[in-house]
Amino acid sequence: MSELARDLARLVGAEHVLAGDAARPYERDATVFTGTADAVVLPGDADELAAVVAWAVERGVALVPRGGGSGLAGGAVPVEGGVVVATERLDRIVSIDAEAWRMTVGAGVRTATVHRLAREHGLLFPPDPGAAEQSTIGGNVATNAGGPHAFKYGATGAWTTGVEAVVPPGERVRVGGPHRKDVGGYDLTHLLVGSEGTLGVIAEVTLRLIPAPAASLPLVAFCADAVAGGEAVAATLGSGVQPAALEYLDGDTLRHVRAAYPGEIPDGAGFVILAEADGEPGEAAAVLADLRAAIAPYALAIAEPDPVPLWRWRAGVSIAVDGVRGGKVSEDVVVPPDRLADAVAGVAAIGREAGLPTCSWGHAGDGNLHPSVMVDPRDPDEVARGEEAAARFFALAVDLGGVITGEAPRALDHQARIRRAVDPAGVMNPGKKV
Amino acid sequence: MSELARDLARLVGAEHVLAGDAARPYERDATVFTGTADAVVLPGDADELAAVVAWAVERGVALVPRGGGSGLAGGAVPVEGGVVVATERLDRIVSIDAEAWRMTVGAGVRTATVHRLAREHGLLFPPDPGAAEQSTIGGNVATNAGGPHAFKYGATGAWTTGVEAVVPPGERVRVGGPHRKDVGGYDLTHLLVGSEGTLGVIAEVTLRLIPAPAASLPLVAFCADAVAGGEAVAATLGSGVQPAALEYLDGDTLRHVRAAYPGEIPDGAGFVILAEADGEPGEAAAVLADLRAAIAPYALAIAEPDPVPLWRWRAGVSIAVDGVRGGKVSEDVVVPPDRLADAVAGVAAIGREAGLPTCSWGHAGDGNLHPSVMVDPRDPDEVARGEEAAARFFALAVDLGGVITGEAPRALDHQARIRRAVDPAGVMNPGKKV
Repeated sequence: MSELARDLARLVGAEHVLAGDAARPYERDATVFTGTADAVVLPGDADELAAVVAWAVERGVALVPRGGGSGLAGGAVPVEGGVVVATERLDRIVSIDAEAWRMTVGAGVRTATVHRLAREHGLLFPPDPGAAEQSTIGGNVATNAGGPHAFKYGATGAWTTGVEAVVPPGERVRVGGPHRKDVGGYDLTHLLVGSEGTLGVIAEVTLRLIPAPAASLPLVAFCADAVAGGEAVAATLGSGVQPAALEYLDGDTLRHVRAAYPGEIPDGAGFVILAEADGEPGEAAAVLADLRAAIAPYALAIAEPDPVPLWRWRAGVSIAVDGVRGGKVSEDVVVPPDRLADAVAGVAAIGREAGLPTCSWGHAGDGNLHPSVMVDPRDPDEVARGEEAAARFFALAVDLGGVITGEAPRALDHQARIRRAVDPAGVMNPGKKV
Repeated sequence: MSELARDLARLVGAEHVLAGDAARPYERDATVFTGTADAVVLPGDADELAAVVAWAVERGVALVPRGGGSGLAGGAVPVEGGVVVATERLDRIVSIDAEAWRMTVGAGVRTATVHRLAREHGLLFPPDPGAAEQSTIGGNVATNAGGPHAFKYGATGAWTTGVEAVVPPGERVRVGGPHRKDVGGYDLTHLLVGSEGTLGVIAEVTLRLIPAPAASLPLVAFCADAVAGGEAVAATLGSGVQPAALEYLDGDTLRHVRAAYPGEIPDGAGFVILAEADGEPGEAAAVLADLRAAIAPYALAIAEPDPVPLWRWRAGVSIAVDGVRGGKVSEDVVVPPDRLADAVAGVAAIGREAGLPTCSWGHAGDGNLHPSVMVDPRDPDEVARGEEAAARFFALAVDLGGVITGEAPRALDHQARIRRAVDPAGVMNPGKKV
């Protein structure tokens, strides 16, 4: 046992410190990136977590916070070494107040558990990132995870009213709270949302919930190609109704997931739109009819499948694309929604030039794509070429009018100033986020 | 002309620098607080604003940013002197993209103009703070202004996807953007939301919009007292439907605004609930029926007035309460929604002990009250007693389980660290917020 592991064992118990082979599963996420952890520590409560952070600040050891390990951006991978802080033991259900539509849970509670608890009380936690059985709510908050229904309901941050976090030099801090309006201070809750563990480690979250809609009526439209699909998306956005979700899969993505589709796929389908109408039964039916009318002129066929198998199919897209060559390099870019067809074509062109297969899918209504290059993760040269191609996706998005907002140099300077103010020792997930 | 005013005149033109009597209207807001401005400067664009901030940082002069001056918390009042930076000339309509449901406007554009522009395109900007004709969108963002419909739709920050701000030492910074998902950096947009000009001055905002609901059906319930009213609110929250708004006025507030009510008020009414159902016509009617069923057991009478005069009446409450004695000291506190009746009674008890008239009203669904002490603003002793009484509203809220979250010492330390990182010279609205 290394000295570092012995230190950590004193803080959390030896059985909650992993090294060597036991640490391997904590060195990767859902990307092709892997790292090497000097140790993995699993604190059992917020006080132990605070002790770990205090120790790391004192020793100058880098910490890499980790939720369920389902991330698509490498945020939880110890690419520069350091100690992985796994939050999975922070899995307490602290309180559910169904009458006030809220819940407080530990960061390590699985997203699927949050969904189930809400449902058992007639309520809905709307964010629905893809790997709900694996991902944790703390990881969802730290990455501001979205999902198909973020189109109507917003991403995880929109449902997070309060956070308990451990921040350097090792203090437990509560920000926000159970109430939807916080009348004091800066919005530190939303500064932590999406900060990927670079400002602190999330220990506990308070979530707001809403009454579950009585009806959820999905619609699947198959179009001949991305041009027709892009026009259908534009027509939907211009139709004056609010779908709960508005997703797309391009033709290449469809090829990889068509066998698992819960229904019939018409010949010639080269682009798929998934939409949903929800609300009171009468409203949902009216919205569904409007969606259908907007999309029909551009579609080969339209189906109205059951929601549960449909969204499970949609949630499996990323894993299915992984299966094509064993791995993928994916990015997360935003373009104006009316440039969707150009974005899909641009991704394919980048793939052709790189000589690697690509595909894209994502949140059509927000213009938010997941362009991906499929690679064999055992072939370092191919992974490197995949990463080069994926880097071009950002330039494509900018060319199409998408703003990569974090990149403005002055805003970056402010990001860095805030990061230094919170973490002067520079131990929190170094190399990530900024 | 002072040297300071001459400096500012060089930056923005002499006609846009006010002092003496011309500065008086900029030394107060909708509270009883007044201050003294060393000068008032009205920059005409973001570059002039940046020049003003750079000048202030260099000279160590305090800046007090100001929107429409309708604030209820004194945030824009130069209580410690300094230069008031009025943003009203930053009133450009930069772009409206109706198909993508978004709008970019200067910070000085009036809230009512934002509403009107959205409506002209079949869209809705949901935040509806009380003084829409007077307040500016920049002020709404800087204070994260809410309003009745924040219950369903969230406050201004939930609709703000991007901001251009001028930050120390005088730089224009764009954070967030037109897209609803920002994939890079920390959420600086929401750090600026609600920061009351202490981290920078907002110059321009990008707002998201939604299709306007086809139907908005309000309901007004008159209850005998706060106990019955509190039970009606609890029954509504437990009914499983989502009202667009859920507001209350206590009996004292009702007395001051009953003459202006657009309808009949039954004898014995001592508490009013305002709710609204919206959506597709069928859905709105169904939600309205559910709201009516939940509230009816606790109500003396229920009416369904037209929305426009009803919400105009509601928006006039604060000004009407001002009229009782000439001014008021109001606070903004949050209690668990099921303690609403106790909060109303507690506010009245504090008023009795202070020998001053009080009343309360606000956002029942969120447990967010505006308890107020009515005072004669020309009587400094009475104002001081009013402020003492109002300070007790916070203790009342905490006693009832409301969390004044910004007050935790460790979180406060982080607030201060972030503020120093952004504004090391300490010139941005000193004495406010933290």
